[in-house]
This record gives sequence, structure tokens and C-alpha cells, in this order.
Amino acid sequence: MTLDHHYDRFKESMQQFGDLQAAISLMAWDKEVYMPPKGAHFRTRQMMTLEGIAHSHFTDAEFVALVQHLLEHADQLDADAACNVQRTWRELERSLKLDRDFVERRSKATSEAFHAWLQARKENDFSVFAPALDALVTLKREEAARLGYEDHPYDALIEGFEPGETTARLDALFGALSNWLVPFVARLRQRPQVDDSFLRKHYPADAQWEFGLRLLRNMGYDFEAGRQDKSTHPFTISFSPQDVRVTTRIDEHDFAHMTWSTIHEGGHALYEQGLPAEHYGLPLGQYASLAIHESQSRLWENHVGRGMAWWQHHYPALQETFPEQLAHISLEAFWRGINRVAPNFIRTEADELHYHLHVLIRYELEKRLIEGSLTANEAEEAWNAQYGEKLGIEPPDAVRGILQDIHWAHGSFGYFPTYTLGSLYAAQFFAQAEKEIDGLEALLARGECRPLLDWLRDRIHRHGRRWLADELCRKVTGRPLSIDPFKQYAARKFGAVYGA
Amino acid sequence: MTLDHHYDRFKESMQQFGDLQAAISLMAWDKEVYMPPKGAHFRTRQMMTLEGIAHSHFTDAEFVALVQHLLEHADQLDADAACNVQRTWRELERSLKLDRDFVERRSKATSEAFHAWLQARKENDFSVFAPALDALVTLKREEAARLGYEDHPYDALIEGFEPGETTARLDALFGALSNWLVPFVARLRQRPQVDDSFLRKHYPADAQWEFGLRLLRNMGYDFEAGRQDKSTHPFTISFSPQDVRVTTRIDEHDFAHMTWSTIHEGGHALYEQGLPAEHYGLPLGQYASLAIHESQSRLWENHVGRGMAWWQHHYPALQETFPEQLAHISLEAFWRGINRVAPNFIRTEADELHYHLHVLIRYELEKRLIEGSLTANEAEEAWNAQYGEKLGIEPPDAVRGILQDIHWAHGSFGYFPTYTLGSLYAAQFFAQAEKEIDGLEALLARGECRPLLDWLRDRIHRHGRRWLADELCRKVTGRPLSIDPFKQYAARKFGAVYGA
Repeated sequence: MTLDHHYDRFKESMQQFGDLQAAISLMAWDKEVYMPPKGAHFRTRQMMTLEGIAHSHFTDAEFVALVQHLLEHADQLDADAACNVQRTWRELERSLKLDRDFVERRSKATSEAFHAWLQARKENDFSVFAPALDALVTLKREEAARLGYEDHPYDALIEGFEPGETTARLDALFGALSNWLVPFVARLRQRPQVDDSFLRKHYPADAQWEFGLRLLRNMGYDFEAGRQDKSTHPFTISFSPQDVRVTTRIDEHDFAHMTWSTIHEGGHALYEQGLPAEHYGLPLGQYASLAIHESQSRLWENHVGRGMAWWQHHYPALQETFPEQLAHISLEAFWRGINRVAPNFIRTEADELHYHLHVLIRYELEKRLIEGSLTANEAEEAWNAQYGEKLGIEPPDAVRGILQDIHWAHGSFGYFPTYTLGSLYAAQFFAQAEKEIDGLEALLARGECRPLLDWLRDRIHRHGRRWLADELCRKVTGRPLSIDPFKQYAARKFGAVYGA
Repeated sequence: MTLDHHYDRFKESMQQFGDLQAAISLMAWDKEVYMPPKGAHFRTRQMMTLEGIAHSHFTDAEFVALVQHLLEHADQLDADAACNVQRTWRELERSLKLDRDFVERRSKATSEAFHAWLQARKENDFSVFAPALDALVTLKREEAARLGYEDHPYDALIEGFEPGETTARLDALFGALSNWLVPFVARLRQRPQVDDSFLRKHYPADAQWEFGLRLLRNMGYDFEAGRQDKSTHPFTISFSPQDVRVTTRIDEHDFAHMTWSTIHEGGHALYEQGLPAEHYGLPLGQYASLAIHESQSRLWENHVGRGMAWWQHHYPALQETFPEQLAHISLEAFWRGINRVAPNFIRTEADELHYHLHVLIRYELEKRLIEGSLTANEAEEAWNAQYGEKLGIEPPDAVRGILQDIHWAHGSFGYFPTYTLGSLYAAQFFAQAEKEIDGLEALLARGECRPLLDWLRDRIHRHGRRWLADELCRKVTGRPLSIDPFKQYAARKFGAVYGA
């Protein structure tokens, strides 16, 4: 067999793996949007079976040998093919380092931690969760050792969510961010507060739904290649670049939730719809990293969707849709209200600035758990102390404190940083777009999003997983990720909002 | 390993096969109800991949050896386990007789036939389809030879849809049915026609939808373990006994379509919801046969849903929902109208009696195609002649004639008989239910369907695939399938409708 034939077999196998993932994703989507309640029991086993089959398919000895063979001859492959092989190997190698026994132990510990977390939430008592968290952290440390790392065991875990990212770089970025953000936010807190009470008037569900669809259409989301449904927690899911679905949740007494979660998911979905279909199932057909994915949602949600230009175009229609609620609210007052900054206990309800303080706290704690400088038992106290220090508030209880997120209960140590990285990338990308797209502000103010989408498609989406996140950032913006664009954006916008 | 361990492995493997089938079914469901148009391309390959994986899983050499081992020691297994092994082997043995080369040739010929059929329908010209049909028939004859048979090559094909059924028995049953039905229907045609024009007034979609849900609830369909959605063609699909979904289509100018297709699908769904969950993935957890499945839908659709008792309960609510359309139509007139009998060209639009004439014609023709006494080229002439003879009408063109069904284009020779068998089983089961359930008619007239459902659950549903269809029929009714209950039911009802 020629090398081309080997590559074709590799490609077919990867695409079959993609097909299995798509089936699992469809089961996950259905579970959240349409599955009847009694369907849960068998759905769980069906998803587990398919996950097992997908894993076996990916780590099959013959497939591994095929990838290794191609890897050894990567210099004879064209650039795209070589990239697909190399990026696949990077992921495959990780899988192969974890033997079946370890994966089963991890799966058992994760399941136990998840149930302990549910119980601890019910009792509002962290000590119910702490022993399971401790066991899981021990296993994650073992996982890091098995996977290997150069500097820090946490590096081995980040790699699973954000390939190429390191603890050293995060320490530098997040340290600088914290040093700037904590006093900046504290300063805003001294200013007179803006009013956003109009967002909590009664906004009928049907009209919200229609307005959300209008926003998605305006962004350029392709409804021929996707759809929107309702679910308890909004999410985006892709079965192929030609079938990328979003969900939303509508709260009739909170207009903000539907609106910015729709724009956020729309940003994720535009990325997935823009991935190259010809690389379906292959790294070049997949999103670059979680942080880059998040950069797309945050860019649309915050830089576009909380910007004055966007609402110059959309606010008249919104006022027309909800005249009772908004007729007497000026565009300026609306824009200030939607950019209100105030500390609270819950990460997912945080504003655009405080959000990162929530993330930085989690990053710090999970890094220390993994390196062993903090025990599970000490975690709640450390959590509460950090909230006092960074946000100036004290969580009233565990449910509104350390028990609020599912991530640790799922064993996802290394995931949280991607949220803040996403915002930093978003700011850097958007600053670049403003430089490169003539009159971007004016375009958005006229409702013309296409030039921005085309720019994102060209610079980011179409490249799939060709580069690691930071390489991509250098290609797009000419420099590595820095906190400066975020600082400049935040200082300018929130300075204006608060007249500070 | 003990025999019990072997059986456990067999069970786990079968349940994984069930999981794969459930994933494929979910993809099929989604395709019909929610998939955005551009999703079709990758969905097709995703379904093909999963079908390939499912097939490999089922015919895996190690699994085959396991089943053979258990089969040899079936006498040491408990009755349920032995049945699961034996019924699995019956199906597996068939799969093993068709080698990969043959399956690929068949798949290619089927795909070509399907596209030729689409083209022929577009051109309304059977001769466009005939060569592909001929090629496919040749392959189906080869398939029959490979599968083996005692009396008739068609037997080998029926077995794929209706295990244990034979051409000899169908000839006897269908011959007798035809001899009775053709003159009976001809006699009804001499009577003054009943009026059903009220069914084609304007019935708003939302109210139809709600009324359909009401009917399903009344039948005992469990909405906690299923749901209804809309699709172009109504269907029932199961992912487990705890997630069985139905679809409907609403035509605002045809109240009949939604109503009886809903009851029909509801009958299918009640069967699937009643299969024993503890045998998920195993023969004992599956429907007995296609004809038995159809018996459940037909029993509810015709014996219950077109019966006077059912409408004694439901008609007042229906009149209240649609007062303009029905206020001046008496219950008696309504009941006569919904049981109107009139010949037409299209099987799927046929009334309860003519329906079987459509099926008998297809049975006769496909049997002759497979035995070689009719060529594909001669099929349209034979079709039209049969319609003249049995229904007294001549199809005006190929689309309203031999090109109307997809079955042959899909290579499904041996499927059609299960429709009429289903009605015959339904009549025999319902006659038995009337004997065994005190005052069944009065119960239905009060809207109490539960005793009937409980009876079906006890006699039929909970047994899954324990017996072949005719064995099941003997267990339930004490005798083999006969056309007499159907004749008696039809003579009584349509005699009353037409005063004949």
C-alpha cells in the first residue's frame, strides 16, 4: 500500500470516529431538549456504550500503528495531511498513556465524586463532598504523573483542554490580570451604580424567543445548517459543520439571560458552522481549543453584543417589541444598564469583569490541589478567603460558594482557565478586527455583521486545529496572547459606563 | 467460564447491539422531525457508519462462537435464556449466509433501484424503473437461494420480515380472503354511498394536535416514556421501552388523516412501551414480528378507533372542539362516515377493506417475480389488470399505479403480506378480547381503555419475541390464524354501515 492509501485509511477511520461522536452528541442534545423523563435510564447506557466503542475505535492497535507509520513519513505528506496526523498523534499518545485499569478507577472515582457533590449540595455542606474530592484529586495527580509533564503536574491536565497551555504562562497572565482587575473593579464599585432594573420587567416568552432568533440571523447563523431549541442550560452542539444547534432558556422576568446567552451560543455556533467540511472528523475540521472556542462566544457576546454599535441597530426594534418595558429607557441608559458591574457569589451570573475573578480563584485553588499545597479539606476556607480578598464578599454558604460548579465533581481540573483565556483571546482578536476592518463600528451600527464574520471565518474558523491556540493568536494578531487588549477594552468601556 | 458467565457476556453484547440500534433510530427520528436541511449529507454517512459497526458487532466471530456454544448447551439454560439464544441464532444464521461480497452487490443494486424509482416517478414512466427492478429481483432470487428454503424461494424472503411465515400458508389465507372480500366489497359498492364530506371541512391544526394528544392519553400511551412530534409521514420509533415516540401529520382539510394515523401509531407505541424492559436488547424484549406489530396498530385503529363505542365516548368532546364542523353531524352519521368504503388507486389512502385488495395484488406480483413466473417488464401490465379485476378500477398512470410504493425500490420483497396479516391477527385478537373482557364495548363507550390495554399487555406485549407469530396467536386465541374473525367483524360492521 502506498502512503496515500494509508492516509485514506487513516482519514476514513477518523471520520468514522467523528460519526460516533456525532451520534453521542445527538443523544446528548436530545437528552437536554426532547427526551421524555423515563428515557434517561437506557439513554445513559446507550451513551456509555457508544463512548466505549468510540474509545476502542480510536485506540485500536491497528489504527495506532497506522498513525505511527504516517507520523514517521509525515515529511512525505502534504501539509494538511501531515497536520492531521500530527495533531491526532498528540491526542492519541495521551490516551495510550492511561491504561484500562486506571481509566476504570478514574471513572469510578468521578462517579462517586459526582454523587457526593449532589448530596453535599442537598445538605449544603462541603464536608460531605470533601472526602470524594480528596480521592479524585489523588487520582488526578496520578493521572498527571502517568501523562508526564516538564514543570508542573497541572500542565498535564490543562493539556487535555487547552493543548500547549502551561501553568507558568497562566501564572504570568492571570497574575497580571488579577493585579490590574481587582483594583479596577474596586474603583468602579466606588462610583454611583447604574440602573438595570428595566431588564427585570416582564418580557413575554414568545416575543423573547422571536427576538433571539432575530439576533442569531443578524449575526449570520445559518438556520439551514442548525436550529434553536430550549433547554435548562443553554449550549451549542455540533454534529457536522452543516448541523450546529444552539439552545436557549427564557426567563420572563430576566431579559438579559436569553439575550446574551443567545449571542454567546451564537458565537460558538458560528465557529462550528465555519469549520471546513472537507476535514470533517479530522483535526483540521475541529475547533482549535476550548479557549479559542470561548473567544468566539465572548467576542460576540461582549465586544459585539454589549457594544453601543450593536444596540444602535437593534435597540429601536427591541423598543418596538417591548414598548411598555423600554419606551422610556434611552439607548444610552440601556447600554449602561446592560454593562452594569456588581460582585455576586455565582460565577455563571457574574458580569463581564467579575467573571474573571471567579475564574482566577478557581484556577488558583485547583492548581494548589493538584500540586498538593492545598488539601481538599482546606479548600472551602481558601475559597471563602479568596472571595473576600478579590471580590470583597463572603459566600453565605457552600452552595453559593465552593459547591456551585460541577467541574471538580466531574474531575475537570484544568478547564476553568479556558474561560478567562477565551475572553483574553476575544479582546485581542477584536482589537485586531477593528484595525483591519474599515469602519467596523459603523458597520455594526448599521446591522452589518457579515464583514466581521467573514474576517473571523478567514482568520480563525477555516483553519480548524491547524495551530495551537497561541500560534493561532500570533498568526491572527502578530503577537502572543497578552492581557493588554482586554485591559484597554475594559478600561475604555467601563470607564464610559461608570464615568470613571 | 461457567455457562452463566457466557450467557452474561452474550446478554451484554446483545444489549450493546441494542444501544447501537437505538443510536441509529435516534438519528433516523431526528432526520424526520428536527434536522435542518443541510444536515442530511453528514447524517447519511453517520447512519451508514453506525449501521456498519452494528453489523460487525452482531456478526463478530467471537460473538458467533459464543452464541453457538450457548445454543449447544441451551438445555442447561433457563427457559428465557434459552429462548433469547435460540431466537438470536435464527437471525444470526441468516446474516452469516450472506457474505460481504453479496451484501455489497445487494446494497449497490438497491441504491440503483431506489434512484431509478425516483427518476421513474419523476417521469411517470415505469419503463425507467423496470431494468433496475429486474436486476434487483435477480439478486433477491440469489439471496433466496443463498438463504435456502424448502418449498418456495419467496419463503426465504418472508422469513426476514415475518419469521415462520410461508408462501403456502399465505396462498391459502390470502386466497380465501380474496374470494370473500372481492364480492363483499363489490356488494357494498351497489349500496347508496355514505357521506363523509364533513371530514374535509377546515379543522385548525392546533385543535387537531390537542385532540390527537387526548386520544393517545385515553389509549394509555405514557407521555413520560414518549412524545409526539410532527413529520411528513407518521411513524413510531423506539429507543427503549421507556422512550417510544410517535409522530403525526396534520392536514387542516382532512381530519381523518391525523386522527386515525395517531390511533394507529398509538397502537404500535403501546406495544413497544409494553415490551419487558428487563429483556432490553434481547429477543424477549423485542416485538414478535412485523405482522404482530401491525396487529396492535390495526386493532386500535380499526376495531377500537373506528368503532361506535369509542366515539360514544369521544364524539361529544370532538363536537365541542369543532362545533362549526360537526354540530349538525349525528354520532351515527359520523360513525358511518368514518367507515366509508370506496376504491381508489393508492394503498396508503385506502379504506379498511380495499386496503387488503391493494396488498393481495402486491403479494401476488412479488411472489411471481421472485419465483420467476413474471418478469419485471410485465409487472405494470399485471398490476393494472389486477386492479381492474379486484378493485374494478384502472390506474391512470404509473405514479398512481405500480410506482406508488417504495418497498420494491428498497428491495423489501416479503414485507407487504405483513400488513394484511396484521389485520387478520388484529381481528382474531380483538374477538378473543371481546370474549374475555366483560363488557368491553361498554368500557370503551365510557372511555375506559385500560382493561383492553392490560389484556394486550398480558397476552401479547410482555412476551416479546418468545413465540413465532402463529404460536403467539394459538396461545392467545387457542387456534391458528384464520380469516374468519376478520370476515365476521367486517361483515357485521360494514353491513351495519351500509345497511347491507
